Amino acid sequence: MGTTEQLAKFILETRKEGIPEAVLHEGKRCFINYLAVALYASRDSSLDILLGVFGDEGGKERASVVGTNTHTSLQNAALANGYLGHLEDYDDTHFPTVIHPSSPTLPAALAVGEQLGVSGYDALVASVLGMEVCCRIGVAIHPYHYNEGWHITGTCGVFGAVASAGRLMGLDLDSLVHALGVAGTQASGVREVFGSMTKPFHPGRAAQSGVLAALLAQRGFTSTKTIIEGRRGFAAVLSAEYDLEKATDGLGEKWELQMNGLKPYACGVVNHPLIDAMIAMRSKDGVVAGAVDSISAIVHPLVLELVNRQHPEIGLEGKFSFHHSMAVGLVDGGAFPLQYTDSKVNDPVIKSLRDRITAIADESLEEDQAIVTVNLRDGRSYTERIEHATGAPQNPMSDTYLEDKFRNLTDDVLSTEQRETLLDRLWHMETVNDLGEILGLTRVSQRQSRD
Amino acid sequence: MGTTEQLAKFILETRKEGIPEAVLHEGKRCFINYLAVALYASRDSSLDILLGVFGDEGGKERASVVGTNTHTSLQNAALANGYLGHLEDYDDTHFPTVIHPSSPTLPAALAVGEQLGVSGYDALVASVLGMEVCCRIGVAIHPYHYNEGWHITGTCGVFGAVASAGRLMGLDLDSLVHALGVAGTQASGVREVFGSMTKPFHPGRAAQSGVLAALLAQRGFTSTKTIIEGRRGFAAVLSAEYDLEKATDGLGEKWELQMNGLKPYACGVVNHPLIDAMIAMRSKDGVVAGAVDSISAIVHPLVLELVNRQHPEIGLEGKFSFHHSMAVGLVDGGAFPLQYTDSKVNDPVIKSLRDRITAIADESLEEDQAIVTVNLRDGRSYTERIEHATGAPQNPMSDTYLEDKFRNLTDDVLSTEQRETLLDRLWHMETVNDLGEILGLTRVSQRQSRD
Repeated sequence: MGTTEQLAKFILETRKEGIPEAVLHEGKRCFINYLAVALYASRDSSLDILLGVFGDEGGKERASVVGTNTHTSLQNAALANGYLGHLEDYDDTHFPTVIHPSSPTLPAALAVGEQLGVSGYDALVASVLGMEVCCRIGVAIHPYHYNEGWHITGTCGVFGAVASAGRLMGLDLDSLVHALGVAGTQASGVREVFGSMTKPFHPGRAAQSGVLAALLAQRGFTSTKTIIEGRRGFAAVLSAEYDLEKATDGLGEKWELQMNGLKPYACGVVNHPLIDAMIAMRSKDGVVAGAVDSISAIVHPLVLELVNRQHPEIGLEGKFSFHHSMAVGLVDGGAFPLQYTDSKVNDPVIKSLRDRITAIADESLEEDQAIVTVNLRDGRSYTERIEHATGAPQNPMSDTYLEDKFRNLTDDVLSTEQRETLLDRLWHMETVNDLGEILGLTRVSQRQSRD
Repeated sequence: MGTTEQLAKFILETRKEGIPEAVLHEGKRCFINYLAVALYASRDSSLDILLGVFGDEGGKERASVVGTNTHTSLQNAALANGYLGHLEDYDDTHFPTVIHPSSPTLPAALAVGEQLGVSGYDALVASVLGMEVCCRIGVAIHPYHYNEGWHITGTCGVFGAVASAGRLMGLDLDSLVHALGVAGTQASGVREVFGSMTKPFHPGRAAQSGVLAALLAQRGFTSTKTIIEGRRGFAAVLSAEYDLEKATDGLGEKWELQMNGLKPYACGVVNHPLIDAMIAMRSKDGVVAGAVDSISAIVHPLVLELVNRQHPEIGLEGKFSFHHSMAVGLVDGGAFPLQYTDSKVNDPVIKSLRDRITAIADESLEEDQAIVTVNLRDGRSYTERIEHATGAPQNPMSDTYLEDKFRNLTDDVLSTEQRETLLDRLWHMETVNDLGEILGLTRVSQRQSRD
């Protein structure tokens, strides 16, 4: 049996009871984390662009865009909700592949699940299976695929989306195999667009492509049966090297979702150990910005490749600046969205500190490791070594911290009551009879743009 | 100036008067050929799948799906019309790259142009520029890109679509550059799906992606300014080797559209010189089937590899039979879809003639060459050597034959009056005040599936 068919069988035939409790719990954490960041992002003015196009183009009222009062087509809702999940670069990360599995997958499950009125439990299971398939395909092509310039969340995301949508729609095996074909051939998204709105557009489009693929296949649309493993298929065409054994090895026994981490900081993950180090020195050693002469960091080489931008000028650029991320970590003790606004990147205190930060690469470090030395004007110096950044699978964010993140991010979007009810329903998804109840709690009658 | 910006300037700044008359004429031929094959395809039952999803998902009535009475969103219309253009594998081919430029490009221009009520002249110019850009980007990455497994019509198609849509929408330079970024990062489509409905889905999705990109950029959506040439951009990520000089070399002076060929016959291209030879002997020498004793052909080896099937039993097999293709060429003087029906392959006259046809391979022949000798019962014989099959840039299909193709393909879709009026308007696109008039002539009040 080929890889595509094996994964299709896994998607359709895995019973709820066959998924370990810890994995389902991780799935709930993904929903809470996803909705926290998507609801926060829903007040970004760039969402007006998407909603404007939906308004012009139309679409039946079938599914909700979170944080708004918009009901639109399944495809539009999937696109917008995928966009919102990744807009703040604050979503989850599957560490072995740097896939952000929630943003392309959950919006497909939410759209299809809301329209069909499925239970919270079914939505949770379909999402867990979708994210698992998304990440497993990623494992099979990583690191070659990403290194070639692909945004792996956009490419592998189509599989997570179509898997969760296809399971909820009750596709038969043959239809799901074809749906995987239609989805897989739409895999796209290059890293050249990083730093613009088109980056979060990738998981949005992936979610939409997966939903469209499932809708077409349900009506008999045909495709290849070997989209993943075929000679001219996804792996061969989109990756210089790959090992498809990894996509199915230990399927149903080993869960990639357990290698998924939730992000404490609202920026690229390679910044995280550096922020951890700054926060640690701030709280442990009492270091304050005014006393700093210079800061030097030893980092994984990807830091210099991806986030080496000493002088960001707008908030979005700040997310791709380790200098800025370290500076706010020391000055503000955190790196929430408020630390990546236009005004924050132009704050004189932050700018001045950024100018005193340097880094060198060390190939012996892991991606979630860093060593930071702060030299104070008075001659003292402190060195902090981070072994695993917060949010890494070895050092997961606690459920309590996740609740804090949820409350922080949704504070100006939902009322306290709505927020707390939503949080409660998400922790108890298996008891929710109709997914529409959860979507209803994400609704906002008068959406206001934050900027 | 980078490749992306150069092409964007070309798209926006080229004046109508700057396009040679011969190129505009080729553009009209593309419209006539595209509408011929799309209208024919509109009666295929697989279109019901797309229309069914549109019905479920909704969309405002903004643009027409040709051959139907469906008005839907710009994106839906672009998707369906792109699908229809390529469904029969009977659309145009840019010979240097094997791109089919009309199918992803014209549907974007038609949808946006119909909604805006642009003139036929503007639609023609925007389409010519879109196809030019699509093909030029293809030239820069061919043959490496296709050889890696990409369906180049799907990938490069997004650029043709966004170019024509962006020009018609009057985007400014900056917005068009961003639109190219949003479009280019959606480039997708692998060859693994060939032989299924997902192949024609590629130009459909490309057309839709281009329209969406233009709609988003018009409202201020941001992307990269270097989608084509960037280190992690389209060319670098999707092609092992490339030469971007070719994308802009002689821009506005040399026109790739003049290397675009229209397909005269509804079957695999290796049959084409053989059909040419039969039609020539029919018209020039007055050869009729009843007088034939035997026919022998000397062919490129690929003919014996791909289309060596003396006794086809169903229409589809007839397309992969040089015997059948030659027989209908002599008996009917053409090879339209009607020559590849189940009843035609079982026609006694055709079957009897097929039995008397043989061929041998000669490696010294090119793929578009053939030598055919007909021996008549009365002892006479004729030999015809074809140097370039009809439809190659060196031997283009005549305008008269294109009209025959248009009439043959639309015969059971449009009334005679509607068909002739449409053909007339297409030949005189520069005089049409509102593109909606042309779309109105493609409308069918009661669409019937052919099967």
